[in-house]
Amino acid sequence: MEKLFVVKIGGNIIDDEQKLTNFLQDFAAIKAPKILIHGGGKLATKMAKELGIEQQMIDGRRITDAETLKIVTMVYAGLINKNIVAQLQANGCNAIGLSGADANVILAHKRKHSTIDYGFVGDVDAVNAHFLHSLLQQQLTIVLAPITHDANGLLLNTNADTIAQEAAKALSALYAVELIYSFEKSGVLLDVDDENSVISTLTATYYAQLKEQQLIFAGMIPKLDNAFAALNSGVNKVIIGKAEQLHALIQSTAGTSIINES
Amino acid sequence: MEKLFVVKIGGNIIDDEQKLTNFLQDFAAIKAPKILIHGGGKLATKMAKELGIEQQMIDGRRITDAETLKIVTMVYAGLINKNIVAQLQANGCNAIGLSGADANVILAHKRKHSTIDYGFVGDVDAVNAHFLHSLLQQQLTIVLAPITHDANGLLLNTNADTIAQEAAKALSALYAVELIYSFEKSGVLLDVDDENSVISTLTATYYAQLKEQQLIFAGMIPKLDNAFAALNSGVNKVIIGKAEQLHALIQSTAGTSIINES
Repeated sequence: MEKLFVVKIGGNIIDDEQKLTNFLQDFAAIKAPKILIHGGGKLATKMAKELGIEQQMIDGRRITDAETLKIVTMVYAGLINKNIVAQLQANGCNAIGLSGADANVILAHKRKHSTIDYGFVGDVDAVNAHFLHSLLQQQLTIVLAPITHDANGLLLNTNADTIAQEAAKALSALYAVELIYSFEKSGVLLDVDDENSVISTLTATYYAQLKEQQLIFAGMIPKLDNAFAALNSGVNKVIIGKAEQLHALIQSTAGTSIINES
Repeated sequence: MEKLFVVKIGGNIIDDEQKLTNFLQDFAAIKAPKILIHGGGKLATKMAKELGIEQQMIDGRRITDAETLKIVTMVYAGLINKNIVAQLQANGCNAIGLSGADANVILAHKRKHSTIDYGFVGDVDAVNAHFLHSLLQQQLTIVLAPITHDANGLLLNTNADTIAQEAAKALSALYAVELIYSFEKSGVLLDVDDENSVISTLTATYYAQLKEQQLIFAGMIPKLDNAFAALNSGVNKVIIGKAEQLHALIQSTAGTSIINES
């Protein structure tokens, strides 16, 4: 099967104009079919503040009320998505920016929770891999904003890591997918304070050992659990590492490669 | 050739939630291939005001400075475009919302003017009819926001009427295109104060006569000149009328039909 890179960029890149420009140059240069998923960084919070809209947080999660939904729709699907697309076009990469509502690319439902009302937050039901494939076949690069829809007219705010994972899983039926989470660290670290302690390869067995020895930073555990879930759903490889090292990441010569046992 | 409807909705519909909902229900029910072009109504102005950004106007035209460009990108390509797409999806119409940067759909250049600096305003150079056709062939309905790009990384604010006209012209090579401008009046009126004085059919000869007799409202002349230019570039018919009468407009039983001499 043909290789497909599904790349998530973290908020720290979105927030830094120069870093974003450099990243998009590197990303545009990837020859293989590719999909980019972006979050919103601090822009949405900044915009809400300027408009005098109070941000509600519960357990570190933003509650998406109706006014916040408008802001994230504007900032994620409008400002950030279209600027990324325009910059990729300037780098000779024919990109198309989509929200989950466009061509029914990501169908979701409003999160139901017994005690917390998260507001307009969507959990993913289905990814339209058939349509994404038709775009990739036309040599287009897809840029996904973390906004989904429920097919009943509601737009929903959805975690960008989750969208990357769901897109990667859905496209695994058609491509040999490598899912890359780029963030501010060099990879999964054995010592959270030492950027040189990157674990280069992580299998389920090794991960279980490290967790037992409490050598995995607690904040990484949900990300890694998701990475192994993606592998179990057909994704070939998950790579976690620094956005500035994108080319090394796609060659698996930097960052942490999360792979099936050989 | 297959029929294609290219429909522009005016700002007065965008600004009225109930009117927009009704319009989108009617639009979704059109069985033929179709493209919707929207402007931004008063939302962008309202947002700029809330954010404390001064709007500069020269000769009734908004000057698009860098801050205003951010706002129109957010409001047009984000908030309005994605809400329209989500509502069309809810009405069983598989819609995809695009800016001109997406898949290089509308290439433009920053307007050059000897005395006025319009800022980030784009004049259209090319419409990617080939890609739009590929979407229409997949039974997708296209929703275009009036934001274009210059292929060098700049997003540009572009008049929605112009985008409708350019898209209609470009697609005339592949479809029998009917271009519909929906606005607040019932059509081109012989008496600007009488909604019952709609001219049902307008040819170039009749238009010249009416202009000579000064029976055409001055504000309509640029719109009508553009309509005849579209006919001369291969568009089959241009229809001008009230958004609330969309179904009658597409059957040419309401509004003003602007057609070639038979």
